[in-house]
Amino acid sequence: MNDFFNKDIISIQDLDKAQLEVIYSETDKILEMESSQRREIARGKALGYLFFEPSTRTRLSFQAAMALIGGTSFGIADANSSSIQKGESLADTVKIMAGYSDVLVLRNSLDGSSRYAAEISEKPLINGGSGTEEHPTQAIQDLYTIRKEKQKIDGLKIGIIGDLKYGRTVYSLLYGLGNYDVDVHLISPESLKIRSDSTYDIKKGLSYTESTSLDEYIEDLDVLYVTRIQKERFPDEEEYMKVKGSYVIGQDIIKKMKDDAIILHPLPRLDEISSDVDSSPHAKYFKQAEYGKFTRAALLGLILNKDGF
Amino acid sequence: MNDFFNKDIISIQDLDKAQLEVIYSETDKILEMESSQRREIARGKALGYLFFEPSTRTRLSFQAAMALIGGTSFGIADANSSSIQKGESLADTVKIMAGYSDVLVLRNSLDGSSRYAAEISEKPLINGGSGTEEHPTQAIQDLYTIRKEKQKIDGLKIGIIGDLKYGRTVYSLLYGLGNYDVDVHLISPESLKIRSDSTYDIKKGLSYTESTSLDEYIEDLDVLYVTRIQKERFPDEEEYMKVKGSYVIGQDIIKKMKDDAIILHPLPRLDEISSDVDSSPHAKYFKQAEYGKFTRAALLGLILNKDGF
Amino acid sequence: MNDFFNKDIISIQDLDKAQLEVIYSETDKILEMESSQRREIARGKALGYLFFEPSTRTRLSFQAAMALIGGTSFGIADANSSSIQKGESLADTVKIMAGYSDVLVLRNSLDGSSRYAAEISEKPLINGGSGTEEHPTQAIQDLYTIRKEKQKIDGLKIGIIGDLKYGRTVYSLLYGLGNYDVDVHLISPESLKIRSDSTYDIKKGLSYTESTSLDEYIEDLDVLYVTRIQKERFPDEEEYMKVKGSYVIGQDIIKKMKDDAIILHPLPRLDEISSDVDSSPHAKYFKQAEYGKFTRAALLGLILNKDGF
Repeated sequence: MNDFFNKDIISIQDLDKAQLEVIYSETDKILEMESSQRREIARGKALGYLFFEPSTRTRLSFQAAMALIGGTSFGIADANSSSIQKGESLADTVKIMAGYSDVLVLRNSLDGSSRYAAEISEKPLINGGSGTEEHPTQAIQDLYTIRKEKQKIDGLKIGIIGDLKYGRTVYSLLYGLGNYDVDVHLISPESLKIRSDSTYDIKKGLSYTESTSLDEYIEDLDVLYVTRIQKERFPDEEEYMKVKGSYVIGQDIIKKMKDDAIILHPLPRLDEISSDVDSSPHAKYFKQAEYGKFTRAALLGLILNKDGF
Repeated sequence: MNDFFNKDIISIQDLDKAQLEVIYSETDKILEMESSQRREIARGKALGYLFFEPSTRTRLSFQAAMALIGGTSFGIADANSSSIQKGESLADTVKIMAGYSDVLVLRNSLDGSSRYAAEISEKPLINGGSGTEEHPTQAIQDLYTIRKEKQKIDGLKIGIIGDLKYGRTVYSLLYGLGNYDVDVHLISPESLKIRSDSTYDIKKGLSYTESTSLDEYIEDLDVLYVTRIQKERFPDEEEYMKVKGSYVIGQDIIKKMKDDAIILHPLPRLDEISSDVDSSPHAKYFKQAEYGKFTRAALLGLILNKDGF
Repeated sequence: MNDFFNKDIISIQDLDKAQLEVIYSETDKILEMESSQRREIARGKALGYLFFEPSTRTRLSFQAAMALIGGTSFGIADANSSSIQKGESLADTVKIMAGYSDVLVLRNSLDGSSRYAAEISEKPLINGGSGTEEHPTQAIQDLYTIRKEKQKIDGLKIGIIGDLKYGRTVYSLLYGLGNYDVDVHLISPESLKIRSDSTYDIKKGLSYTESTSLDEYIEDLDVLYVTRIQKERFPDEEEYMKVKGSYVIGQDIIKKMKDDAIILHPLPRLDEISSDVDSSPHAKYFKQAEYGKFTRAALLGLILNKDGF
């Protein structure tokens, strides 16, 4: 029986390196499969999705993954048109959805919502993003992309730049990277550094440096992971305008990068990466998005099939 | 040819006991089928749904049912983003949807909307809830749950408690119970008794008592069917606060119930049943929700397949 | 290899007569196929839809088409609940959707949006309506309906009536008709004539007359194509009330029509055609809607299968 069969995926912290490697190799397998083989993996299975925060990207990625492996998906894409409006509790919604489907995906703004929901659900539940820290399938997708594009994760120098305070993907990625022997450099405006209440846990797995400038690291990086900087996060517009420019990845920056360095971004992107970077061989963020379909397909396949696929 | 082939399902009043029994036994059959067999029932068939009132529960139940038996579903989940906004008539929307799909489900707030739409539609149409009285697939699901959990319907003592004035599920259930030899006790605040303009029809099939208190019946009931009590239904908040407590099912009440009595609820639930009742062996409302997937799958299978499945 | 394999469908102007004929004959083929054969055409393929303008009709038609030929569809039906809200560019949304699916449909209010998106997309992209002129799949559906119901297009007298200024379907249809030897009569209020900046291109393929009254043509027409007249389009209500009556197709008008003349409408309809016309043998607009499912299925089948189906 495979490790993931009928299991919940709540936090990237629950997965060890060996388990991550299983997901990577199953993703490789799906990428190489014939379409007719893939369709057997989730044939006759249904994914129920519950998105209480808007998220086109993650929802569509799961729907695409399920379609790829022959399954169906349905659910709530928008909490406004749902029974939630009628005052139903999250617990009840989850219980009922578990009766309708074989596996669930939940997106909710509250910390702990997924773990709570998973305890209630009679079917395996995947966290599609919750609270301030957890987005395990995004982290798996990010790690897979690094491994696929760099052929390894251990030994890499990885810069993570942008708003490190509010993006849950950053936290999930850092926890995931804790399984590997990597040099991590965190680059952000002073006011958007990673939250001090999370650093204790992150440091258990990982050592990293923090700075406000990319300059001193850019030439050594193997991976540059860029995140959105949203105006709303700044106390005043002046503050925003001051830092904005220094966190935009453009031609000037990629010129300094190692030839085989890659740029990632969890997307959606605003202005953090100039669109003229898209055609550069460094730019891997759209590949990263596409890999997300395959890593999710692999994960769903493992959860739904006792002996794997 | 089976009785339901290519037929509309508009009102539970259109179905006789023998027809209900067919649906129950086909539901039993689907519950026992292998997944590979189920998927043949609606293979290549499409369900078109038109929900002009918000209804997550019913829509997802139909989508889950269709997926279970190998079909597809698509439609309008929210009248706001549809051609209705452009001023299209219900008749036109239904005619066009009939051209796109093999069977339709319609939810509409107007009495008679489903019967009207069914006359227009060239494809069989299922009422997914209309007006003040009709929700036939909910009633089928309720009756099936009673029969499944109690092994029979005839001879049972059934209490129905809560807002009996505004909930269409109550009316559909009462009409459905009219086919059986049951003792029905209706319990509600004075202002939320069943509407007097409906009692004439209901009494054709059924005799029942009415009261404002559960106390005198609770010890004898085989089935307690609970419905939502919504604050908005009361003329003033004081009135609401006065009755609210007496219509909440908690530990004190289940202690008085017969050992094998069951509690049902059409859901969504607000506070009418304490969540600590969920783990009691009496609580069958989540099973009831799940059975809804199977009763709808059976009904769809009968409508779509000339000689049944 | 078929002409449409992996190709974008951006404008009806990009298709020549021979290509249109291929789509018609493939549509005929699908109409005659067994359901089990149809389902092989897009088996395992996914359609990703991006609707940035509300459009129930077109979206559902594509979903129905994809289901008919055994494929899956998912996407964004409503720009409000999407990443667009987070400020993502159209280009990024398209790129990511291309990674999730095998073929895309885009609806966008801007002229040129589809051609721009198609250049960005790594997967074939179909224009589901853009700007003021382009709605190629609607034009294909219209042309197919004429050919199917009249057995030919060449030699027909075709009247197009209503708001010819703002409806993109009219422009697409006129460009499509440019491939055929037809007599076209455009009938509209003075203020809703086709835009003068489009007439140059339209006249390249087509000669037509313009008038404000249907009277002089009605007896000769083989096809009457009716479009919506929206109150909002008029400078003042008086103006609207003045013309409204003369553009409503009722019993008085159909009495004057040739016995085998047909009435079409791209739908949704408001009051332009009295509902008592629906049962007339002239009325083909609901058939037209249904044919749209099959023409789209044929087009998708050609795009997705190298050697056709």
